[in-house]
Amino acid sequence: MFFSQNTDTIVALSSPKGIGAISLIRISGTNSIALVDRLFPSKKLLNKDSHTLYVGSFIFEGEIIDEVVVSLYKTPKSFTGENTVEISCHGSTYIQSRIIDVLIESGCRLAKPGEFTMRAFLNGKLDLTQAEAVADLIESNTLASKNNAIRNIRGGFKSDLSSLRQRLVHISAMIELELDFATEDVEFIDRTTFIHLVDELILANNALLNSFKLGNVLKNGIQVAIIGKPNTGKSTLLNTLLNENRAIVSDIAGTTRDTIEEVLNINGVLFRLIDTAGIRDHSIDLIENLGIEKSLEKMKNSDLVLYLFDSSNTPIDDLLLIIDDFNQQAIKFLLVGNKVDCISISDQNLYNEIPNLILISAKSKINLDNLKDRLVELTVEGDIDSESTIITNSRHYEALKNLSVSLTDVQMGIKNNLPGDLLSLDIRQCLYYLGLITGEITNEEQLDLIFSKFCIGK
Amino acid sequence: MFFSQNTDTIVALSSPKGIGAISLIRISGTNSIALVDRLFPSKKLLNKDSHTLYVGSFIFEGEIIDEVVVSLYKTPKSFTGENTVEISCHGSTYIQSRIIDVLIESGCRLAKPGEFTMRAFLNGKLDLTQAEAVADLIESNTLASKNNAIRNIRGGFKSDLSSLRQRLVHISAMIELELDFATEDVEFIDRTTFIHLVDELILANNALLNSFKLGNVLKNGIQVAIIGKPNTGKSTLLNTLLNENRAIVSDIAGTTRDTIEEVLNINGVLFRLIDTAGIRDHSIDLIENLGIEKSLEKMKNSDLVLYLFDSSNTPIDDLLLIIDDFNQQAIKFLLVGNKVDCISISDQNLYNEIPNLILISAKSKINLDNLKDRLVELTVEGDIDSESTIITNSRHYEALKNLSVSLTDVQMGIKNNLPGDLLSLDIRQCLYYLGLITGEITNEEQLDLIFSKFCIGK
Repeated sequence: MFFSQNTDTIVALSSPKGIGAISLIRISGTNSIALVDRLFPSKKLLNKDSHTLYVGSFIFEGEIIDEVVVSLYKTPKSFTGENTVEISCHGSTYIQSRIIDVLIESGCRLAKPGEFTMRAFLNGKLDLTQAEAVADLIESNTLASKNNAIRNIRGGFKSDLSSLRQRLVHISAMIELELDFATEDVEFIDRTTFIHLVDELILANNALLNSFKLGNVLKNGIQVAIIGKPNTGKSTLLNTLLNENRAIVSDIAGTTRDTIEEVLNINGVLFRLIDTAGIRDHSIDLIENLGIEKSLEKMKNSDLVLYLFDSSNTPIDDLLLIIDDFNQQAIKFLLVGNKVDCISISDQNLYNEIPNLILISAKSKINLDNLKDRLVELTVEGDIDSESTIITNSRHYEALKNLSVSLTDVQMGIKNNLPGDLLSLDIRQCLYYLGLITGEITNEEQLDLIFSKFCIGK
Repeated sequence: MFFSQNTDTIVALSSPKGIGAISLIRISGTNSIALVDRLFPSKKLLNKDSHTLYVGSFIFEGEIIDEVVVSLYKTPKSFTGENTVEISCHGSTYIQSRIIDVLIESGCRLAKPGEFTMRAFLNGKLDLTQAEAVADLIESNTLASKNNAIRNIRGGFKSDLSSLRQRLVHISAMIELELDFATEDVEFIDRTTFIHLVDELILANNALLNSFKLGNVLKNGIQVAIIGKPNTGKSTLLNTLLNENRAIVSDIAGTTRDTIEEVLNINGVLFRLIDTAGIRDHSIDLIENLGIEKSLEKMKNSDLVLYLFDSSNTPIDDLLLIIDDFNQQAIKFLLVGNKVDCISISDQNLYNEIPNLILISAKSKINLDNLKDRLVELTVEGDIDSESTIITNSRHYEALKNLSVSLTDVQMGIKNNLPGDLLSLDIRQCLYYLGLITGEITNEEQLDLIFSKFCIGK
C-alpha cells in the first residue's frame, strides 16, 4: 500500500467518554505489543498467541496504575492489519487518561479520528466503501441504517462496484485489442452488443443513484412537523406513538427527551417529529393564520406536515381550505382526524372522499398502525428491506453522478462511431470515478478528509 | 458462597453510555457461553479455551446485528468466578441496545448495579473490602484515591483485618483453653502479655480509625471557598492554578468547566475550589459585610477559606480585622496577598508577622508552589503517600468504631479480672465486627445495599 510511513504506534480511547464499569483503550502499530509488554510485566506478551487475553497489573515506573485485561491481535489478523493491543481498564476517567498518558510517554502517539480504520484501509483490509460503512454503522440508530451499514461493511457496495468495473474493463480490453489490430480492420465486439452493454451499465448506475434519496432517509431520518389546534390530542398522540418505541433507543442514548424533536422508529426508519412550539402556542383556525415566518419555514423544510384535527368538531369545509393551502405552498401533508371513537360511522364516511386523510383515536389506539404505514408510504420511496445497495454517502453520490456523465459520453461515442482510442479514454474516465469510490484512486488529503469525520478510537 | 441461587445469566453494558467507536457488553453465569454461542454461529464457542477472542457476526433470527469480538472467560478464571463472555460491538447506541435486547430475549436478565462484583464476592473471588474498592477505583479521580483503591483491591485492607483477626483468635484460643482446664487453675497466658496484646490491637485499630479523615479527603476532595474583593486577581489565580492541571482530568471527563466548582489536583489530592457567586458579586470591604447567610454557610461548610487580597493596596489593619472575624466564626482560613511583584521588599516584610498568610503573584507565577503546599498542609492531615491503609468507606468506619468499643471492653475485662467465659464473649463480638467488614458475616439485604451503590455493568 502506498503510505508506508504509517508504522508508528497509535493509541486512543475507543469506548465512549465518561465514567463506566470498564473502558477500552486501543493501541495499533508494529511495536504495539512490545510497547505494552514493558508496562505489563506479569506476562511475556511477545511470546503469546494472537486472539488471547491476559489479566494483570499495568505498571509504570513502579506505580500500579490499574488491574487490566490485555487483548492481543497479531498482524495481519487484526482490524487494522497491524499488531494491535486492547486494554480493558476500570472506567474511571482518571485511570483512562493516566493509561493513555503513560502509553504516550512510552512511545505511542494519540490517534487521529478514524485513524485505526484508515490503517485498515491502507493495509488492504477494507476498501473505502467498507471503511466508510464502519462510520455509518457507529452512527446508525435504526434497524434499516444498521442493516445497510452492515451490508456495506461486508462488501455489498464494493461488489456492485466491482461488477461495474469488470464489465467496463471487459469493454475496454475489447477496444484496446481492436486498436492493436487497427490496420487489419477487425471488429472484436459488434457495436450493437457494445451499446447494449453500456446501456446495462447506465441502468445499474442509475439504480444506485436513485437509491440515494432512500439512503438519505436511512441516514438522516424523515422530518415530520406536527401541527394542530390545541386540544386536538397532539400530546396524547405523541406519547402513544413514542411509548411503544421508547425502550429501544432511549435508555442508553438518553438524548431525545429534552429537545423539541421526538424520534420515532417506524419499520426501521427514523421519523423526527417536530412539535414546533411556534405553531403550537398560537391558537389557530386555519393554516394561513399560522403564517409565522419561522413555523412556515419549518413546515416547508419538513418532509411531511402532519395536521392533526379533532374529527368530532372540525367542519369538512375547513379541511378543504387547509388542503388548498398546503397544495399552494407545495407542502406534502397528511390530515389526521383524531377522536374517531367519538363520531358516528356516517360521519366517518364523510371523510372518505378527502385525499391524504386518516381517522384515528390516539387515546383508544385505533388505526395507529395504519397511521404509521401512511407516514412511511408518503415519505419513503423505495424498498428499505431490499437486498440491493442503498447509497447513503454524498461522496459516493457525486462520483456516481460523474460516472453517469462519462457513461453517457461512452454511449454517445459509440453511436457517433468515435474512434476506439477516444472511446477508450472515456472508459478510463469511468474507471477513474469507480476507483475514487473504492479508494483505488485517491490521495492523502482526500483520505484525511474522509477519515476526519470518524470518531476517535475507530 | 451462601447465595447459591445466583446461577442465572446476567447482562449489562459495561462501557460508559453513549456513542463511541467500541462498546463492551458483559454476560456472566453458568450458561453464558452456551447462550452467546447460539447467537455467534461462526465459531463453536463451547469448545474454545478460556481467555481467547473471536471475531464474527452476532446473528439473531437471521439478522446480522453486528460484527463483534467475543472474549471468553471460563469458570473459575473470570472476574465473577462464573463463565463470562464479553462482547465488543460497534459503539452505536442502537446496536448496544439491540444486542442487549437480543440477549435478554435469549434468556439473560439485565444485571443490577454491582451485580458482577457481588457475584465475585459470593463466589469467594474477593472479600467485601476488595469488592468495595472496585467501586472506589471506578470513582477515583486522583492519583491518591486511585492508589488507595488499587491497594485495597489487591487486599491491603483485607490483610490488615486478617492480621487483627488472627491476633484476636489467638487470644480467644488461649482463653478457651484456660476454660477447658478451669478446674486445674492453669493460666496459659499471663495477664500482662494479654493486656499488652489487646493494647496493640487497640492501637492498630485507632490508626485505621484515624485514617478515615484522610480517607474522606481522598474520596471527596477538599472544599476551598475562594473569596476576595473584585480586581484582586481571583480569576487569574484560578486560571493559573487550573491550567497547569487541566490536561490530566478534563479532556476525557469534560465535566467541571460549567459548574461554579473548579477542581484542582495538588499532589494527588483533589481540591474543589468554590468560587461562590454570592460572595463574588458583592463588593465587600470586610468579612462581616459579606454576611449573606448563604455565602457564610458555604464558607463554614468548606474545609478552608482562601481570602485573596491585593497586597499593593490592602491595609494591614483590615487584614487583622478579617482574621478576627474568621477566628470568631471558627473558620479555617488562608490569607493570600496577590501582586507581590508590585510591592517593595520592605512592604513584603510587613506581612511577616501575620499568621496564615502567603504572598504570591498569580500573573507572574511567583510563590504558587508554596501556595499549593500551604493548601495541603492546612487541610490534609496524615501521609497520603504512606503504604498503610486509609479508610475511605463509612461502613468500614462504623464497624471499626464498634470494634474499638468492644476492644476496650476486653481491655477493661482483663484489668477487672473478668472470668474467661465473659472475656471470650467480648472477643467474639470483636470478631463479629471484623467479619462485618470483610463480609464473612453479612446478610442479603446488607449486600444489596452495598452493591446498589455500584455502577451498572460492574
